[in-house]
Amino acid sequence: MANQEDNFKKVISHAKEYGYVFQSSEIYDGLSAVYDYGHNGVELKKNIREYWWKAMVQLNENIVGIDAAIFMHPTTWKASGHVDAFNDPLIDNKDSKKRYRADVLIEDYVGKIDTKIEKEVKKAEKRFGDNFNKQKFIETNPRVVEYIEQGKSILSRMAKSLEKEDLADVKALIEELDIACPMSGSKNWTDVKQFNLMFGTKLGASAENAMDLYLRPETAQGIFVNFLNVQKAGRMKIPFGIAQTGKAFRNEIVARQFIFRMREFEQMEMQFFIQPGTQQEWYEHWKENRMKWHLSLGLGEENYRFHDHEKLAHYADAAADIEFRFPFGFKELEGIHSRTDFDLGSHEKYSGKKLQYFDHETNRNYVPYVLETSIGLDRMFLAVFSNSLQEEELENGTSRTVLKLPAVLAPTKAAILPLVKKDGLPEVAHEILEDLKWDFNVTYDEKDAVGRRYRRQDANGTPFCITVDHQTLEDQTVTIRYRDSMEQERVAIADLKSIIHKAVDMRTWLLKMEDQRA
Amino acid sequence: MANQEDNFKKVISHAKEYGYVFQSSEIYDGLSAVYDYGHNGVELKKNIREYWWKAMVQLNENIVGIDAAIFMHPTTWKASGHVDAFNDPLIDNKDSKKRYRADVLIEDYVGKIDTKIEKEVKKAEKRFGDNFNKQKFIETNPRVVEYIEQGKSILSRMAKSLEKEDLADVKALIEELDIACPMSGSKNWTDVKQFNLMFGTKLGASAENAMDLYLRPETAQGIFVNFLNVQKAGRMKIPFGIAQTGKAFRNEIVARQFIFRMREFEQMEMQFFIQPGTQQEWYEHWKENRMKWHLSLGLGEENYRFHDHEKLAHYADAAADIEFRFPFGFKELEGIHSRTDFDLGSHEKYSGKKLQYFDHETNRNYVPYVLETSIGLDRMFLAVFSNSLQEEELENGTSRTVLKLPAVLAPTKAAILPLVKKDGLPEVAHEILEDLKWDFNVTYDEKDAVGRRYRRQDANGTPFCITVDHQTLEDQTVTIRYRDSMEQERVAIADLKSIIHKAVDMRTWLLKMEDQRA
Repeated sequence: MANQEDNFKKVISHAKEYGYVFQSSEIYDGLSAVYDYGHNGVELKKNIREYWWKAMVQLNENIVGIDAAIFMHPTTWKASGHVDAFNDPLIDNKDSKKRYRADVLIEDYVGKIDTKIEKEVKKAEKRFGDNFNKQKFIETNPRVVEYIEQGKSILSRMAKSLEKEDLADVKALIEELDIACPMSGSKNWTDVKQFNLMFGTKLGASAENAMDLYLRPETAQGIFVNFLNVQKAGRMKIPFGIAQTGKAFRNEIVARQFIFRMREFEQMEMQFFIQPGTQQEWYEHWKENRMKWHLSLGLGEENYRFHDHEKLAHYADAAADIEFRFPFGFKELEGIHSRTDFDLGSHEKYSGKKLQYFDHETNRNYVPYVLETSIGLDRMFLAVFSNSLQEEELENGTSRTVLKLPAVLAPTKAAILPLVKKDGLPEVAHEILEDLKWDFNVTYDEKDAVGRRYRRQDANGTPFCITVDHQTLEDQTVTIRYRDSMEQERVAIADLKSIIHKAVDMRTWLLKMEDQRA
Repeated sequence: MANQEDNFKKVISHAKEYGYVFQSSEIYDGLSAVYDYGHNGVELKKNIREYWWKAMVQLNENIVGIDAAIFMHPTTWKASGHVDAFNDPLIDNKDSKKRYRADVLIEDYVGKIDTKIEKEVKKAEKRFGDNFNKQKFIETNPRVVEYIEQGKSILSRMAKSLEKEDLADVKALIEELDIACPMSGSKNWTDVKQFNLMFGTKLGASAENAMDLYLRPETAQGIFVNFLNVQKAGRMKIPFGIAQTGKAFRNEIVARQFIFRMREFEQMEMQFFIQPGTQQEWYEHWKENRMKWHLSLGLGEENYRFHDHEKLAHYADAAADIEFRFPFGFKELEGIHSRTDFDLGSHEKYSGKKLQYFDHETNRNYVPYVLETSIGLDRMFLAVFSNSLQEEELENGTSRTVLKLPAVLAPTKAAILPLVKKDGLPEVAHEILEDLKWDFNVTYDEKDAVGRRYRRQDANGTPFCITVDHQTLEDQTVTIRYRDSMEQERVAIADLKSIIHKAVDMRTWLLKMEDQRA
């Protein structure tokens, strides 16, 4: 656990040092749960976004994109259910005046029970040594069994109360568990209240004409309200999809874990419009397709798993997450949701406009069902980045920090290094740079010994180092060094472009989707 | 004038019909001055953004990108001057309760004088026929001369009063001119007041901890507050630039002209950090460079002009606009500003942190000067789109609507059309689509006669139509039809990729920057 935390800290500090992620407004001591992407971060983010867009829009004849505004008519959020139901249960401590998410207080309490279980396990492990059967111990040790029961019963009572909106019982539970304010130790709590997570603002200057707006908490609604416009202008036939990437905003009370849960974040969503009754088959299709997309990046099959939801949101008739092994454990990376006709139906009701599709094949009108795939771009960034950051022991006993980003996503594809800063080598290196820069993001580095530059590019995530030396002047060859294997090869300058192309071309990587298991 | 308006209306309706731009939240009767981009619009926007990014970041070794959040620490906007000075002068009519921009009321009044001048000119034109010398008439006709003088004097008095913040005189001017509320005809006005254009919101749930935030009104400040982080992480040496694209928000009272002035819009900005004293040379450099970028797209040299600012903003020591001939006349498309050390200096003061650069060559520390290039992505979209939309008379007496987008920016690069829906032609067309889709956005269309499909693709902006006919089955050739010339050629299927590549490759287009005049 401590090791996990250390690793995560390394991820965060490496992200800053190498220009991937900075705290927002850092010179003003930051803004909580808001982050800026640096010179490498912006390129990694762009590449992930483009990899998604190509897979979803360019390669699928029946999926098109849109780019809807962050500002939407406020009735949108009545229709979507966000005005009434997009809430967190909050509780204030009367003494410290600190506000908490009631559910998080309770979850943290259960987390402490889990820690107790771990302690018991470790103690027993020490006692029994090699003969220790962990699974059996957990299932049979009376103390551990009791802890587990206790945790389960607390969480199940909380879930039921939240579902019934029985906030008084959530408070009662906090009091029964004797939970104290983590800041002050006080147990003097207010009632639990629902707090809406949407950011509000006002449009227009006149007091009379000012309109209460929300910053969109999800991009999906921009697709639903444009459904008919896109269907008509794009002459789309069901089944078809509309894809979108863009910012969304949530006034999270407990925002933590770096860029995993931010107040301002970016989504990549696709809504697939289908004939009612076909949702099960499309649900399976998109679960499989999206998993293949993830696996094509080669971060390791063992780092992904499906989590099927038992409790469904009000709009869904089936839902699953693709979970990824983040530095802090398996967590949701992407959601696949069968949303039925909830959204279009609700917008029909609130707008008074028909949002239907006339199916020429079956000769009937209907409100389409919707299958959604929804992934957080920042989460995907964190998945790729944290998985790629590795500390490697080398044969000579030293170690190196290397950021093994998939080459297709790496911000800089190659660094061009003159072995020394004289004898015309920098000039040749610059010629190579001038030639390659039209095709790739490339960089030039002449500072420090070449070994140190290799390490710097390893940590930067650059898949190729191209070194210009004295032999280059004679035979127009350079050495190319591979980040992951650290092997070096002598190749002709004339071949560089095709070598790099082969390694970073999105087409090649996307084709790997075909080779993946479902 | 009427013709101009008609043309503009055509632009707007074509943008909707072909999925380029929709009114936001249209099913809820729209949101004023907010727009959504449809399936074609999102691709055109992406392509413009990428064309800018490649030119600025990928091709310049000393320019890197960032992606800062929309939310920034509120002190940022104190330091930038936006809290105190980002205002519009507003006036309310007491009877109608309508609010107006005082300067726009006055400008509209002067606009009416201009209409009177036009009437006089037209009358005289009729009277004198072929002998009419318009220029001379305007310069000598006593009534016209008086009108012109009157207009000039009103605008100059308003400008002076606004500059001195003498809002009482702005109100006095409105009363002296006897300006009435356009809605009610009433002349019962309140005082003129300054109204800040930033959208506000609140971060955090606790009343006590809630922080007043603004939605950023420009992306530039995200670059300034990250200056040191980027300089260090990217090991940048002055002169260097930081580029960014992203959303900005302004609560415009008078937002009009379609996507030209929106409340939510996207900027593409680059801040170039330089040694103090070198700003004049860099100002010239970037004026020239940015104009070359525009000209490389081939929209016509005659549609661009520089406008040097005489009145400078508080932060600038030189500023120029690149103006474009929009459907409603020449207007600002991009700004090039020499911002001195105003921004970094001000952030130093407000943050108490040093934002300086140690110059190893001159061995001294300084706050860098900044040269900015700032372009509205939506304006660029409107420039490209409106310029490309043409009504063409054809030789056979008919006409066609064609959207002559630069091929590099076109959303769909090619449409693949089977001549008829049988004999295996759709299958071959799909094979071609499956092959080309890895490289380009391509589409398939089998509905209606092929001539009609050509017209549809013309209006859609697709540069190439590829038609599969019976000969294709025999010799593996297709016809390729060029949108702009309407010429057709028979080519081998195997050559399609390279033909399209040559026409749409960003590298080829960016290389055209070299051929442009300054």
